[in-house]
Amino acid sequence: MVGKPVAEDKFSFGLWTVGWRAADPFGDATRPELDVVETVHKLAELGAWGVTFHDNDLIPFGSDEREREKRISRFRTALDETGLVVPMATTNLFTHPVFKDGALTSNDRDIRRFALRKVMRNMDLAAELGATTYVLWGGREGSETDAAKDVRAAMDRYREGIDTLAQYVVEQGYGLRLALEPKPNEPRGDILLPTIGHALAFISTLEHHEMVGLNPEVGHEQMAGLNFVHGIGQALWQGKLFHIDLNGQHGPRYDQDLVFGHGDVLSAFFLVDLLEHGGYDGPRHFDYKPPRTEDIDGVWASAEANMRSYLLLRERAKAFRADPRVQEALERSRVPELAQPTLAEGETVSDLKADRTAFEEFDVDAAAARGYAYAQLSQLAFEHLLGAA
Amino acid sequence: MVGKPVAEDKFSFGLWTVGWRAADPFGDATRPELDVVETVHKLAELGAWGVTFHDNDLIPFGSDEREREKRISRFRTALDETGLVVPMATTNLFTHPVFKDGALTSNDRDIRRFALRKVMRNMDLAAELGATTYVLWGGREGSETDAAKDVRAAMDRYREGIDTLAQYVVEQGYGLRLALEPKPNEPRGDILLPTIGHALAFISTLEHHEMVGLNPEVGHEQMAGLNFVHGIGQALWQGKLFHIDLNGQHGPRYDQDLVFGHGDVLSAFFLVDLLEHGGYDGPRHFDYKPPRTEDIDGVWASAEANMRSYLLLRERAKAFRADPRVQEALERSRVPELAQPTLAEGETVSDLKADRTAFEEFDVDAAAARGYAYAQLSQLAFEHLLGAA
Amino acid sequence: MVGKPVAEDKFSFGLWTVGWRAADPFGDATRPELDVVETVHKLAELGAWGVTFHDNDLIPFGSDEREREKRISRFRTALDETGLVVPMATTNLFTHPVFKDGALTSNDRDIRRFALRKVMRNMDLAAELGATTYVLWGGREGSETDAAKDVRAAMDRYREGIDTLAQYVVEQGYGLRLALEPKPNEPRGDILLPTIGHALAFISTLEHHEMVGLNPEVGHEQMAGLNFVHGIGQALWQGKLFHIDLNGQHGPRYDQDLVFGHGDVLSAFFLVDLLEHGGYDGPRHFDYKPPRTEDIDGVWASAEANMRSYLLLRERAKAFRADPRVQEALERSRVPELAQPTLAEGETVSDLKADRTAFEEFDVDAAAARGYAYAQLSQLAFEHLLGAA
Amino acid sequence: MVGKPVAEDKFSFGLWTVGWRAADPFGDATRPELDVVETVHKLAELGAWGVTFHDNDLIPFGSDEREREKRISRFRTALDETGLVVPMATTNLFTHPVFKDGALTSNDRDIRRFALRKVMRNMDLAAELGATTYVLWGGREGSETDAAKDVRAAMDRYREGIDTLAQYVVEQGYGLRLALEPKPNEPRGDILLPTIGHALAFISTLEHHEMVGLNPEVGHEQMAGLNFVHGIGQALWQGKLFHIDLNGQHGPRYDQDLVFGHGDVLSAFFLVDLLEHGGYDGPRHFDYKPPRTEDIDGVWASAEANMRSYLLLRERAKAFRADPRVQEALERSRVPELAQPTLAEGETVSDLKADRTAFEEFDVDAAAARGYAYAQLSQLAFEHLLGAA
Repeated sequence: MVGKPVAEDKFSFGLWTVGWRAADPFGDATRPELDVVETVHKLAELGAWGVTFHDNDLIPFGSDEREREKRISRFRTALDETGLVVPMATTNLFTHPVFKDGALTSNDRDIRRFALRKVMRNMDLAAELGATTYVLWGGREGSETDAAKDVRAAMDRYREGIDTLAQYVVEQGYGLRLALEPKPNEPRGDILLPTIGHALAFISTLEHHEMVGLNPEVGHEQMAGLNFVHGIGQALWQGKLFHIDLNGQHGPRYDQDLVFGHGDVLSAFFLVDLLEHGGYDGPRHFDYKPPRTEDIDGVWASAEANMRSYLLLRERAKAFRADPRVQEALERSRVPELAQPTLAEGETVSDLKADRTAFEEFDVDAAAARGYAYAQLSQLAFEHLLGAA
Repeated sequence: MVGKPVAEDKFSFGLWTVGWRAADPFGDATRPELDVVETVHKLAELGAWGVTFHDNDLIPFGSDEREREKRISRFRTALDETGLVVPMATTNLFTHPVFKDGALTSNDRDIRRFALRKVMRNMDLAAELGATTYVLWGGREGSETDAAKDVRAAMDRYREGIDTLAQYVVEQGYGLRLALEPKPNEPRGDILLPTIGHALAFISTLEHHEMVGLNPEVGHEQMAGLNFVHGIGQALWQGKLFHIDLNGQHGPRYDQDLVFGHGDVLSAFFLVDLLEHGGYDGPRHFDYKPPRTEDIDGVWASAEANMRSYLLLRERAKAFRADPRVQEALERSRVPELAQPTLAEGETVSDLKADRTAFEEFDVDAAAARGYAYAQLSQLAFEHLLGAA
Repeated sequence: MVGKPVAEDKFSFGLWTVGWRAADPFGDATRPELDVVETVHKLAELGAWGVTFHDNDLIPFGSDEREREKRISRFRTALDETGLVVPMATTNLFTHPVFKDGALTSNDRDIRRFALRKVMRNMDLAAELGATTYVLWGGREGSETDAAKDVRAAMDRYREGIDTLAQYVVEQGYGLRLALEPKPNEPRGDILLPTIGHALAFISTLEHHEMVGLNPEVGHEQMAGLNFVHGIGQALWQGKLFHIDLNGQHGPRYDQDLVFGHGDVLSAFFLVDLLEHGGYDGPRHFDYKPPRTEDIDGVWASAEANMRSYLLLRERAKAFRADPRVQEALERSRVPELAQPTLAEGETVSDLKADRTAFEEFDVDAAAARGYAYAQLSQLAFEHLLGAA
Repeated sequence: MVGKPVAEDKFSFGLWTVGWRAADPFGDATRPELDVVETVHKLAELGAWGVTFHDNDLIPFGSDEREREKRISRFRTALDETGLVVPMATTNLFTHPVFKDGALTSNDRDIRRFALRKVMRNMDLAAELGATTYVLWGGREGSETDAAKDVRAAMDRYREGIDTLAQYVVEQGYGLRLALEPKPNEPRGDILLPTIGHALAFISTLEHHEMVGLNPEVGHEQMAGLNFVHGIGQALWQGKLFHIDLNGQHGPRYDQDLVFGHGDVLSAFFLVDLLEHGGYDGPRHFDYKPPRTEDIDGVWASAEANMRSYLLLRERAKAFRADPRVQEALERSRVPELAQPTLAEGETVSDLKADRTAFEEFDVDAAAARGYAYAQLSQLAFEHLLGAA
């Protein structure tokens, strides 16, 4: 059995997660507003380590300066009282109608400028509160008809926007790294930078590319039917996994934001295995929604469930890696052999061409006949997942 | 009505397209083998400009040198007789059982070496035949269980493989650029570099990144529910659209390889619009499969259909761009405004921060109230597509 | 060019379509409330024939009797002034939090009873306003975890609910037929009766099955990747196409409710062909959402676009059917041969078994070699769609 | 830990599963042919109870009478030696090119007749071998273009075909029930009767509807993103779950036929729970494919894995149902309340209308405020799945 979460687990929650009032495209809110102070205390009590926020989670859009300060001050006090940290912050560039055609890539230049300023302002607060990651989810950057957006112009503006924001961070001396969060669609018909891959590719074109990485979300990649573990693998390989959003999803459909583990369980198992053994030491951030059917007890139960699921899967993944039968199975599947370079040390392409054993004398049929024993390996993983190995 | 295709249209076909014998996962071949010479002549007769091939389309796996030369020579003669060019070639790294766990990222190092040699050998032929693009589709690079592949090791090997091949091209002085072809799944459960984005991101890490680009395929992106036009827009923006595979697909399901236009028609319209007006001047390559229900007449009818569809859509796209009502509609939707930088010339981030009209005095409600007139614009596109505008 | 819509076209719109204020899961409303009277007048002006409604589109949830009568009376006057009819009505069993676990299949029995009464009450109004179809969309009947619902108990309650409502119609002598509207998911993780097929199957178990049919929606089937034209074909074949919701969708993702024609165009073409030539003479009801980016001009433009798209596709479908080349192509594809029974008139199964020409002497290879010429047929359809044939 | 499978578990395998030689759309076979006798012995050794077959798994298409008898006799002997039963048989109506446009709904009437005879012939053998279920998978009944098939004519022919076959069974006095197997697509672009629902609806129109039910397959429903457990729930509710095909799938993509449990694990858990506690006592039939990467050891390991996965999940489901905390959680979620009729015993619709407590005096807000505690319930299920509760 797993114990209660501790700070070292680095579990964090967005204010907007437990605070979601459960209005959906076909229904009104089913829950009252949650007070921020109560939320911080409750999350701390459950064992969370950090809390994150959009500017407008904390300060309603259009608040005046006094209201703003009052709200920030209450939040700070709650943080101080509980010891919770703010590892990440982000901007709401999607709720207000002004962003209906996007923010950094709205066709309307004035709106693009307004959006940049809105981000900058919240970066000030993020830095003040000690955040080290600033997330940018471009949920409204996109279109419903291909005629609406010149994608190349949009990419120019997107780059200009991110580079401007990075420049701002540099000039202000903030200790922030930026993390882009890809999503294929919803709320726009098609969103720009729809996957981990597209966002990584875009980052490679930035002036400040070294300070921009990713905040991938489980459900977002799975909405495109993509393998999240593979995506995280590539992001890690490119040194760009700056932050992560954990939740659950049942494949291509609307964005479900289920409790972590309550979607594709096998993928969640391999994800935790990769995060724990792959060198990622950032926050384990839950970006989920308590089901609309739940009252406030269900809200806190669901928050707790995310952490318990992670801890249980971590336990299972550890046992998997520690099992000598797994080590043997990996060997039999020649998994470690993939770490060996294909060319020998110092071997040139001409050397390779001259190596008759590699081609002319290669026994293709013998090589083709060798099995990879993946059936055994994947069954071992399945049984470890079920706590039965 | 559109005329017969001409060389300037740059229509090309893979030998494996019309030559597909129509065996599928549940059925045997329904058509006899097509002779290569007949294929070249027939494609020329229909108005194609180019023909492309996998090594084993031309030369069966395991052929000896004499057989190889004989086959190449017959092919060359057919090319000479018809004037067809070979703009692109590629390697079959997927049919033979030896590649069952992949080629450049097989766990088996010997197989990785064999695969590199197989590619190099066909690069020799590609260069000899005047090809300028060499495509690499990693259809077997992937897995069915996340335990089977250390993705980071796989990415190392993939990079090593592509860099080795690029180095070979450089050393041989071949006029070839490499084009990676992404696909999300099938025949593997999950394929590495699953989308345009992932492949672009990977390319940015290569030593020889400048000579490596993409060969995206309509259906492959649509299998992940992604917007192909957006993907091509990003690829063009990154200067990486080296080649393109045109066909049709009905969303997430098996790889259908339908005739171009016989899938998502609206997307095909916007794609042709982008290719024609977006600066791409490479081949229009059809990578489709004549339906399994068809006899040889249906094969040629389907080949012709691809080209007619493209020409018709090109006509529709031209009329769309030329229509003054479309120009007005684009203005009304502020599409051209997106080409304007968000910051003024010379404006710094500090200047932006100091501009009160951008934020403090910005009339958010007025900006939010403005409509984008996309309904009108997209209906105009629809009516142009239907030849009714 | 198509003309303005006329009453004979039987175009109808839900009040909630043009009246959608464009709040979505990530954004606030972008448009003000539309007055019902204005809506009716505007729809009439655009050429619509009918208007439909949920109870709460007309009468806000919780209105008192006076308010209710006032609202109904204004609506009636507008109908009288414009001549618009009310062919269909339906109940909102999804917006209020009370329905968060469903209505007819909520685990809470009191809520099930309340839901039945809410439907009955609006049936009274529907009958009064002359509607002939009463739609039931069970958008909240479902679950996010399989543990939450005993599906067999849920089906019992669903059947009890529909039979009770049908009984009510019978007893009241209302001229209403009930039409179920399937949807696979959203707003619930999984909705009961997810497709045309599941709903048809369920209907076959009803006591009042003869008065219950379907109201299928284009996008709902396409969210499951299903062929809508095939689904409508089966519904017509089972005599159950009572009503239809026309709109557009781009495959498996959130429910887009695009303008009709702005999704899968080829499918829309074949759908109109089937509706026009397949014996359906009910309303052509648009259940779409004007994009959130649009102001009120865009709302009306999008309403008009739905009708123009239908009329254009009808024109294309008529030309397709009238084209002698199409007739020939259908013959060549042996499409009419499918209407011929497989057994001869009076032939028994024993006769079939005794017919050696059917099996023992059947020339399988000759039959297998015959092509179906579908490539030619589908290209003809494509060219007709583009107005180019 | 689970023990070895025993006959009472009713585990069965198709000859074509372990016997799959692993040719796929992009690759040649990777494994040699398996001898039927060896297969039967090996399955028995692993603990299987039954073996199933397509006619052509046993007897190659076109075999003469002597060959046929020889093959049947060897099979029989193996059955006798091992005690394995043949609970189900089916017909291959998809591999041979003659079926390229379908079998019972081919546009070609002669082919439809041939198909019926092919089924009848194998029904003779099925009955002889003691099978009680005869499966019909219409994998080739469908189209790639909507112009190719008049769906209503196709449904007429489908009904004629199934009724003819049912009539044959009746006349021959065979103890067979027919089970239709739905699938949405692949190998056809769209297959008729694409889901459990469509097939159930179709069955309701048959003359011999009482002897026709379903053989649903996990992956087939999940290819359409549908909830398999819900589908099986409806099939059981309609008394039509005659047989079941267990395997794994990762959502909408090609038909993966993974080992049972190696796809959506949470769904597999709830499926086993439903089968074990929902009154199904037919075979647990595995219709999967050993991965193409595997040699013969992997084949048998994967066969074993299916059974172990089922047994483990059965153990987990039993513990879940037996856990008093689960009983409490179900109560709290009011799951048992759904079994209570919505109307009281003897209550009429008029009574309901007269009950003011049901509507006029119903406290909607109080009812809306009650939470369903699904978060707690689903976490309990998750923890039971992981063997951690």
